[in-house]
Amino acid sequence: MHPSTALHTDRYELTMLDAALKDGTAHRPCVFELFSRRLSGGRRFGVVAGTGRLLSLLRDFRFGDDELRFLRDERVVDAATLEFLAGYRFSGSITGYREGELYFPGSPIVTVESSFAEGVILETLALSVVNHDSAVATAASRMSIAAGDRPLAEMGSRRAGEESAVAAARAAFIAGFGATSNLEAGRSWGIPTMGTAAHAWTLLHDTEEDAFRSQIQALGVGTTLLIDTYDIRAGVNLAIRVAGTDLGGVRIDSGDLPIVAAAVRAQLDDLGATNTKITVTSDLDEYAIASLAASPVDAYGVGTSVVTGSGVPTSGMVFKLVARQDAAGSWISVAKASTDKGSKGGRKAAFRTLDRGTATSELIAVSDGFESVDGPDEHPRARALQTAFVTAGDIDTAFEGAGGVSAARAHHAHVREELPVRALALSRSDPAIPTVYVDAE
Amino acid sequence: MHPSTALHTDRYELTMLDAALKDGTAHRPCVFELFSRRLSGGRRFGVVAGTGRLLSLLRDFRFGDDELRFLRDERVVDAATLEFLAGYRFSGSITGYREGELYFPGSPIVTVESSFAEGVILETLALSVVNHDSAVATAASRMSIAAGDRPLAEMGSRRAGEESAVAAARAAFIAGFGATSNLEAGRSWGIPTMGTAAHAWTLLHDTEEDAFRSQIQALGVGTTLLIDTYDIRAGVNLAIRVAGTDLGGVRIDSGDLPIVAAAVRAQLDDLGATNTKITVTSDLDEYAIASLAASPVDAYGVGTSVVTGSGVPTSGMVFKLVARQDAAGSWISVAKASTDKGSKGGRKAAFRTLDRGTATSELIAVSDGFESVDGPDEHPRARALQTAFVTAGDIDTAFEGAGGVSAARAHHAHVREELPVRALALSRSDPAIPTVYVDAE
Repeated sequence: MHPSTALHTDRYELTMLDAALKDGTAHRPCVFELFSRRLSGGRRFGVVAGTGRLLSLLRDFRFGDDELRFLRDERVVDAATLEFLAGYRFSGSITGYREGELYFPGSPIVTVESSFAEGVILETLALSVVNHDSAVATAASRMSIAAGDRPLAEMGSRRAGEESAVAAARAAFIAGFGATSNLEAGRSWGIPTMGTAAHAWTLLHDTEEDAFRSQIQALGVGTTLLIDTYDIRAGVNLAIRVAGTDLGGVRIDSGDLPIVAAAVRAQLDDLGATNTKITVTSDLDEYAIASLAASPVDAYGVGTSVVTGSGVPTSGMVFKLVARQDAAGSWISVAKASTDKGSKGGRKAAFRTLDRGTATSELIAVSDGFESVDGPDEHPRARALQTAFVTAGDIDTAFEGAGGVSAARAHHAHVREELPVRALALSRSDPAIPTVYVDAE
Repeated sequence: MHPSTALHTDRYELTMLDAALKDGTAHRPCVFELFSRRLSGGRRFGVVAGTGRLLSLLRDFRFGDDELRFLRDERVVDAATLEFLAGYRFSGSITGYREGELYFPGSPIVTVESSFAEGVILETLALSVVNHDSAVATAASRMSIAAGDRPLAEMGSRRAGEESAVAAARAAFIAGFGATSNLEAGRSWGIPTMGTAAHAWTLLHDTEEDAFRSQIQALGVGTTLLIDTYDIRAGVNLAIRVAGTDLGGVRIDSGDLPIVAAAVRAQLDDLGATNTKITVTSDLDEYAIASLAASPVDAYGVGTSVVTGSGVPTSGMVFKLVARQDAAGSWISVAKASTDKGSKGGRKAAFRTLDRGTATSELIAVSDGFESVDGPDEHPRARALQTAFVTAGDIDTAFEGAGGVSAARAHHAHVREELPVRALALSRSDPAIPTVYVDAE
């Protein structure tokens, strides 16, 4: 029995529910859409992550005795609404972009079709999960592009809230990282874990030599020694003297990395340790990784920047009512009118058009009605982007757990290949492909 | 029974533990310190938050069957280490800054005194919690200063991971916010919750008038109507026509706020609704709040910027071994030597020196030994900053739960009064008071 996730909800959602139950609009069929108006930070593409987690959290979105007592004691809603919540089970449908999929401005990342009552109270949970995880995945994908074939490990748990750290490790893995330092991410999501020693290990011992000898004794000569606690040059000499030329690796966690990495590589080679690998871990982001492309670095460990989205800690996605039925049962597209925060009403079907395997646009067919929308005939190569996650309340388990993560990682690697070359540059720019709206038949 | 927090740990901590158990250094008495080398983002002061949460999470830091099975299956540690972990209970002591306290570069925010084995594995959990919560609290305190006497509500859950959102609401409340939209934060930490309606409420109804009438019927005339779904001027007219001049408030969530707020105030006054309050909620941060000081705004709702630390999403605190005993039982101060990431070895006692009630320095007495360090005689007005949280494994419950949060909020309000005036400016600068190190007797 997992703890309830039902109070990960903004109070106004329950207030609206309460009022809608009173005036009878609560049961109007509605379409809510989770999307991003723009790509924050001048990113050229976004990466969707979090929907698999959201599905599991949706299973636990139940109002039990504790939750109901709190809502009653705080007078958040009245008795009729408490009764509705006590029986709440999401019975609608959810479609959306698979984890690892790319997104662009206006992409209908998640679409919730249900009564107003059932859908409106999912806003905060859905946005919390997908905004956070997608911000990390987007930054991680850029880092993964910058790193090329060199392995990347996520080591940023200490710079994120303790549960967000696990989600961040998961999102980074989906977007191309190969491992994480976070053991809970290993247990919960099947992500490979890694790590050897901190400076505290060296400082605990009377000498650096004692620390290195002990680590090799415990972990074998294939381990990675942290060689910058005192003097890097002396540390490298000592490491090879103690471990021999079969030492697996050395880690550098400070200094001007291009210079230091080159010096350490030359020193290792001089000492005959030509196979000893160099891992660097000091304040890396996608730009620092890119600047090390010509340096003799074998692996990167990334902390703060990946878990905080490298300057874009949230994706800025919103959750909006885009269509609803009126009292007569006709569908109506709806949208807020404001110029700075406007959104496009109507149900959407999304396709990525491709020209010889390269993405050319995010094509979004907009419908006033509720009918399913087909891909436009003139784009036979368009790839449909939406998948059914929940059908009439039934959650598809394929997207959950370690299996969902592994599939998402493979999907991301695949769809990233479709990006045009200009999408791979790190500098700020416009989205790599345009979002094109068309009216559905 | 809460879920175990023990795997919120970076793998290298258990790797070091494993090796230290083998070489006998695991049981050396150690002092670990959690501190920040600098105030990120040119902030003039930092605000500590998270220690109360950390204490509760420490209670659940237990390696049960599930955790041990994962570590065994993944070969993270050997059988002897698994046995050590199975019996793990933190039996050392933890002292530190109370939540709500201010901090400056080098402040010993949390000090853990224990064997190497018991302390080293707390690094990630401690940093995750305190780094995140303090980043939010620091941003929130600046917003609270900018808002003056006007109430501030935290509404950013959707822009933070779902559990970090709850922690963020808590941290913002400690630093001066008056309420949160997050219901779980209300339940878990006793924080007042608030919220009325979103644009979806208006869009659900056939007309804005239907939506306003229904909301007033359900929530009374004291409610706050969201008036910018279509046209603000028409929305205000309609709101007063429907609710009368006793309408509690209107909320504006878009537009150029200083201009819009002034226009709405004038319109409300013209309509006779002179007591109807104006709440603004669109992309506010401390600078936007400050720029609205002369505008007729009654309350602020802040989202993204507060939960993401307003440009500084993590506090950059580190957890370092600063002193340990050698094999003979003598205390030795230890520190990494690197120039860019150096730290100061030795056990610390911290005091805020005051001159007629105004802080003048962060005075840190450094000791090689393990003796408790007294305040320096020449500063009789110095306020001791460290409190005992855990004594020989016994966690002081006064810092936990809603009571701890409420005390922390009061403490913050109190100590903020000690800040010199220059600390209250929002622009980037140096820390408001210098950190001064002295050798303890």
